[in-house]
Amino acid sequence: MRNFDYHTPTRLVFGKDAINKLPEVMSQIGKKVLLTYGGGSIKKLGLYDKVKELLKDFEIVELSGIQPNPKYDPSVLEGVRLCKENGIEVILAVGGGSVLDCSKAIAAGAKYAGDPWDLISYKVKAQAALPIVDIITLAATGSEYDCGGVISRTETNDKIGYMDSHLYPVCSFLDPTYTFTVSKKQTAAGCADAMNHIMEQYFAEDTTLLNDGFCEAGLKSLMVNAKACLANPEDYRARAEMMFACTLGCNGIYSLGNSPSGWPLHAMEHALSAYYDITHGEGLAIITPRWMKYVLSDKTVDRFVKYGVNVFGIDNTLDKYEIANEAIEMTYAFFEEVGIPMHLKDVGIGEERIDEMAHHIAVNEGLDRAYIPLLEEDIAKILRASL
Amino acid sequence: MRNFDYHTPTRLVFGKDAINKLPEVMSQIGKKVLLTYGGGSIKKLGLYDKVKELLKDFEIVELSGIQPNPKYDPSVLEGVRLCKENGIEVILAVGGGSVLDCSKAIAAGAKYAGDPWDLISYKVKAQAALPIVDIITLAATGSEYDCGGVISRTETNDKIGYMDSHLYPVCSFLDPTYTFTVSKKQTAAGCADAMNHIMEQYFAEDTTLLNDGFCEAGLKSLMVNAKACLANPEDYRARAEMMFACTLGCNGIYSLGNSPSGWPLHAMEHALSAYYDITHGEGLAIITPRWMKYVLSDKTVDRFVKYGVNVFGIDNTLDKYEIANEAIEMTYAFFEEVGIPMHLKDVGIGEERIDEMAHHIAVNEGLDRAYIPLLEEDIAKILRASL
Repeated sequence: MRNFDYHTPTRLVFGKDAINKLPEVMSQIGKKVLLTYGGGSIKKLGLYDKVKELLKDFEIVELSGIQPNPKYDPSVLEGVRLCKENGIEVILAVGGGSVLDCSKAIAAGAKYAGDPWDLISYKVKAQAALPIVDIITLAATGSEYDCGGVISRTETNDKIGYMDSHLYPVCSFLDPTYTFTVSKKQTAAGCADAMNHIMEQYFAEDTTLLNDGFCEAGLKSLMVNAKACLANPEDYRARAEMMFACTLGCNGIYSLGNSPSGWPLHAMEHALSAYYDITHGEGLAIITPRWMKYVLSDKTVDRFVKYGVNVFGIDNTLDKYEIANEAIEMTYAFFEEVGIPMHLKDVGIGEERIDEMAHHIAVNEGLDRAYIPLLEEDIAKILRASL
Repeated sequence: MRNFDYHTPTRLVFGKDAINKLPEVMSQIGKKVLLTYGGGSIKKLGLYDKVKELLKDFEIVELSGIQPNPKYDPSVLEGVRLCKENGIEVILAVGGGSVLDCSKAIAAGAKYAGDPWDLISYKVKAQAALPIVDIITLAATGSEYDCGGVISRTETNDKIGYMDSHLYPVCSFLDPTYTFTVSKKQTAAGCADAMNHIMEQYFAEDTTLLNDGFCEAGLKSLMVNAKACLANPEDYRARAEMMFACTLGCNGIYSLGNSPSGWPLHAMEHALSAYYDITHGEGLAIITPRWMKYVLSDKTVDRFVKYGVNVFGIDNTLDKYEIANEAIEMTYAFFEEVGIPMHLKDVGIGEERIDEMAHHIAVNEGLDRAYIPLLEEDIAKILRASL
């Protein structure tokens, strides 16, 4: 078991009507608010009006139009400008993980005199950040309980996971009823994203019994509840369980003391969605079973057996490779069952830029140090198998 | 799934040599330190000297002699007096959960003008508390990651679980090597205490798939690793896993969104150790299987089946009551295997005060509102069955 230093200062206010505590929380932080959001979904939900009503005594500046796979230019740059010009004291992010990720980069940039890309690219370590509060409307990224975000820079095809301990939200509001209207496509993609967060921590060396059990519980809960959400989008209990399992995804609690795995699936998918702007969870779901097949070996087979037996209930008296292969097939089948297109071609990615992406990943992501080291040719093979 | 509001601001620094970060942490809080500890064990470990060396630039006042089942008089009262007289800025608790529990009561009392019992007895709500840092040398209570403590007042046979959100430690240092010298008796009792923290959360209505899986993982990890610790007290990995599973015990992470259970086992045991000053974990282990047998019914049998199948691997095709009873027997057998005396008579408790204790519990603990409501006569029966 490895040493760790763990600190999650975020307060979680969870459940129906949770946001009624918003004014109490915000008033302890500041009066000048940057309200960040994406498109019209929070207006359709009535959430925009509700927030404005709850915060009628606050000064609110707005930044809207934040996209999935949020962009450095214009969103981060525009947000930083608004914060500096208006003396913003707190950022309130309302929406999915992309809005919050973008807001984290803004929070750091607002307290930095230079080009915010210095921070995101780790050239400079942030010394401070604006406090962040969020209201999450999508069960997926877990950004509401971690200190990271993913930012894309279109002109360089960069999609960088940016983490800094200043970026834990002060408070995250999680009301499962706001996810009732999430589409089947986004529900499935969110589930795949959260499952992958757990798998990235589960498929590692030197894990603990406790962490393995936590991960297996998370995976099972996500699969059962995602199917229930698809069958009945207003199943409160299923939406709530799924939301909370997602919230824990990147917080570390699933793997404290484990060896680091290198997060190979996210590393590869970040290139896919940087080059093609696809839905992150779908990209992950597509490459996951192909990665699994590729890395299955005498070194990893016991891990896949544990996964197959404990997550899918496969008979543990079967041959090891039989269990492992069945577990991989069941992973594929689950993603297919919840409606995820399971080939890169289905999401508009062809052969053309596979080698270019593999090269980009190999150069930028350090997967030669992952749980199962991957070189450029390995990455290209996995991506090709996913076509 | 119930609404919840969850906030754990404690930083955990975990692993061998973790306490080398102590000066860095303490210097951010204050220079005037109340160092609290129990008997001589931290001196035997060399930990006392190490702490004094690390904090040679701090002003240290000491409070020693804090006992298991820590006492309001003299320990809490003496600690509050020392804090007030010396302008203490931070409390550093070094030892097991009792030292930390006592220090939490001191931390609240030091910021209160009246009798500290007003706070502990919930007559008055604390408005502030001194910051607390701890170095834990026993895997058991989980006090290092929660905001509660248990304080005994001998003259009234009261043993009160006192919780307040001001009492989360700022930072907890957890070095598993400090538990290498913990006796077999205390290792087993610590395991039983932590298992019971999880069971109190697991045996409840309206739990989630995620929480059930977390609890089952915690119970399995504790049982496997406690046995490994007893077989080889210097098994770092086993000591580390056990320590961390204990740390999460009362933090809430095992049951966020569950219905409250009323913690019946702790409620009953607190009377046992208030009246007889027995080892808390032993008292819990003794009454647990008797409580289980007593509450097994058509209402609870499915819960016990889940427990038996998922924690002990009992064949799920057997009859429900057969599984449940086997699970209860296996619980008893585990405690016996790790060396816990499994009858109240073995720890010096006879028939004499059973009715008096049952009455005290019924009046003070609200078990009529527990997962399975218990009235005075039920409590007396469970205690008698434990003799």
